[in-house]
Amino acid sequence: MLGKLLENVKKETPLIHCITNYVTVNDVANVVLAIGGSPIMSDEPLEAAEITAICNGLCLNIGTLNRQSIEAMMTAGKRAKELNHIILLDPVGAGASTLRTDTAVNIMNNIHPNVIRGNISEIKSIFLGSGTTKGVDADISDSVTEENLTQSIQLAKRFAAEIDGVIAITGAIDLVADKSKCYIIRNGIPEMSGITGTGCQLSALATIFSAACRSTLTDAVAAAVCTMGLAGELAAANMQIGDGNSTLRNRIIDAIYNMDADTLSKGARYEIR
Amino acid sequence: MLGKLLENVKKETPLIHCITNYVTVNDVANVVLAIGGSPIMSDEPLEAAEITAICNGLCLNIGTLNRQSIEAMMTAGKRAKELNHIILLDPVGAGASTLRTDTAVNIMNNIHPNVIRGNISEIKSIFLGSGTTKGVDADISDSVTEENLTQSIQLAKRFAAEIDGVIAITGAIDLVADKSKCYIIRNGIPEMSGITGTGCQLSALATIFSAACRSTLTDAVAAAVCTMGLAGELAAANMQIGDGNSTLRNRIIDAIYNMDADTLSKGARYEIR
Amino acid sequence: MLGKLLENVKKETPLIHCITNYVTVNDVANVVLAIGGSPIMSDEPLEAAEITAICNGLCLNIGTLNRQSIEAMMTAGKRAKELNHIILLDPVGAGASTLRTDTAVNIMNNIHPNVIRGNISEIKSIFLGSGTTKGVDADISDSVTEENLTQSIQLAKRFAAEIDGVIAITGAIDLVADKSKCYIIRNGIPEMSGITGTGCQLSALATIFSAACRSTLTDAVAAAVCTMGLAGELAAANMQIGDGNSTLRNRIIDAIYNMDADTLSKGARYEIR
Repeated sequence: MLGKLLENVKKETPLIHCITNYVTVNDVANVVLAIGGSPIMSDEPLEAAEITAICNGLCLNIGTLNRQSIEAMMTAGKRAKELNHIILLDPVGAGASTLRTDTAVNIMNNIHPNVIRGNISEIKSIFLGSGTTKGVDADISDSVTEENLTQSIQLAKRFAAEIDGVIAITGAIDLVADKSKCYIIRNGIPEMSGITGTGCQLSALATIFSAACRSTLTDAVAAAVCTMGLAGELAAANMQIGDGNSTLRNRIIDAIYNMDADTLSKGARYEIR
Repeated sequence: MLGKLLENVKKETPLIHCITNYVTVNDVANVVLAIGGSPIMSDEPLEAAEITAICNGLCLNIGTLNRQSIEAMMTAGKRAKELNHIILLDPVGAGASTLRTDTAVNIMNNIHPNVIRGNISEIKSIFLGSGTTKGVDADISDSVTEENLTQSIQLAKRFAAEIDGVIAITGAIDLVADKSKCYIIRNGIPEMSGITGTGCQLSALATIFSAACRSTLTDAVAAAVCTMGLAGELAAANMQIGDGNSTLRNRIIDAIYNMDADTLSKGARYEIR
Repeated sequence: MLGKLLENVKKETPLIHCITNYVTVNDVANVVLAIGGSPIMSDEPLEAAEITAICNGLCLNIGTLNRQSIEAMMTAGKRAKELNHIILLDPVGAGASTLRTDTAVNIMNNIHPNVIRGNISEIKSIFLGSGTTKGVDADISDSVTEENLTQSIQLAKRFAAEIDGVIAITGAIDLVADKSKCYIIRNGIPEMSGITGTGCQLSALATIFSAACRSTLTDAVAAAVCTMGLAGELAAANMQIGDGNSTLRNRIIDAIYNMDADTLSKGARYEIR
């Protein structure tokens, strides 16, 4: 079924406005092209609204946020919302600084993104408050495990209900939830955390899938998560002695470039609860 | 003949000041090094004039323009012009926002670049006005094809006459024109559009060739365009099953690194009208 | 012995705050991950102090400095110093503009970095004054050679004494000196200068090694320099016909990823004077 969603992406070739960090931006652009989308990067407030207006989706990534890019995110976000575009928030590093947490919460509350994707710490920081993460939520450690899976799923559904959208919590086990259902995804390899930006790439992919498959938003985000994880598995299968994280990075993007509906449908490993 | 120009680049090893976008800047720097040049990136107005003064050429790329980099472009551009350095403008996304179109036109009119390189839409946006692109120019679609080739060549020569310099319009067929002659170049492969930044890389190459071969500026830009396209062909010839746009990106830069005069002269496919 | 220091890095997995240029930032992040560290990039003054507080070391690289990042460097630098974190300065392009020289000197005098790493021209620019580099120091050409080695070592030790820290001067021959001893390192290959950012990567590595091995700071920086040079040698040994600087770049990061204590200890080529 997820393969069908990839076919939509290839057919729609969505144009995505990315306001994203300068660390991983090149890989993000190449991943967008690899999957069949088209990227535009712009973080200048003077043009952000105009640029987003010609796009199909908006990916807001606060990885190297600054005063200028925050202003651009708010400006582009408001315009994208008016135009009913898909908006995804990647709250990179929320919890690591007050500015990051506040900016992510501010975007969540005022721009109302359709999708929020982060790791468990980032997601808890913006929903539970960075200061009280451990206090309020001491029974859920900062990773989704088989042991805390039921609780984690409940948490993801609750957060999804709060934004009336989709929450993706990614890590060793990935969760993609709306208020009533949750994908538990087991694609991917641990070595992906040894590459900078696989999360940023995934957020861009999720924006594209969402823009191409609006009527099935949760499935669309799940398809993106499976695509990224499966690409990691396919890349790892081709690694030679002496290869490391740089080669793995290239091979993952290559695998996304070569991903087709059949490969995705067969390779996606998930259950729905 | 074009091989001779590459030899000039290798001999002169021009130092190029790039004010360019943060999406593709790393590839641009590696391509400058690959061909035998030396890159300096600086977009801070406080030092832009001083940095450009120690260089041989200036590459202005508005791919992620902002208020700071626009100021740096104007400051560096004026200083480079005073020093009679080669200046190239890459009007990335002109037509996509008022800021981009206005900035490109402003640079064109006030800095007087020697070379402007873009795709057909960008070039038409700055010469014909973004609002009237289709109205004024409805008989030329937004790509150069065998069908509209004669008209496209005329347009390129006309624009070149307007700036008293060289216009490069790149796409499936590439045109490099001054007011009296036009190279029609058929190097390259379609897959290059699946990589972010091949246009940005080409603009940097064209700046280097121009700086090293000032007396034959049109030929220099044509040599850069052939080098980039031929590198794409050579890279594609080495692709294995499972390779994608990330590997192709690496192989293109590698091919530029290994390009020599003989390979370029034999592999360049062009006619002059 | 140096292998032991690499084991420390793998054990400590230091978190490094990098305020670095946007040209090579992606490679810097991947190198930090490759060696076993963890990178955070932030150049927004509003959060710089808070971000650096959760890290173990701070790497200040002025490769594309601007007013915002300079402010962030000073803010983060002061906080890191208060917390007794390791601070490294990479004065990229000092001597090429007044802003760069002044900023590097300002950081040196007010933040008191533990380590400064640059090429000989950059180091001389900040210690001897850019205007008088040739005048004061005409007997030492702008590279460290076998001929001027004794003088160069004296200079490195003198500069190290001035900052009461470690000076790394890298080039064909690398020097890592404190006031009383100097490593002369002969790892590396000339082709590394054909890749953008090997110096930036090395600075990040030196920050990590320093943060993980504070009690033997000079040895730690030397270990980083040997690691980078040895990675270049190992990468070069795997190059195929048609490979160029892009593939070499990937292979160097891969080699760092696969570097272990034994490989480093056996491959490091240095003497101490």
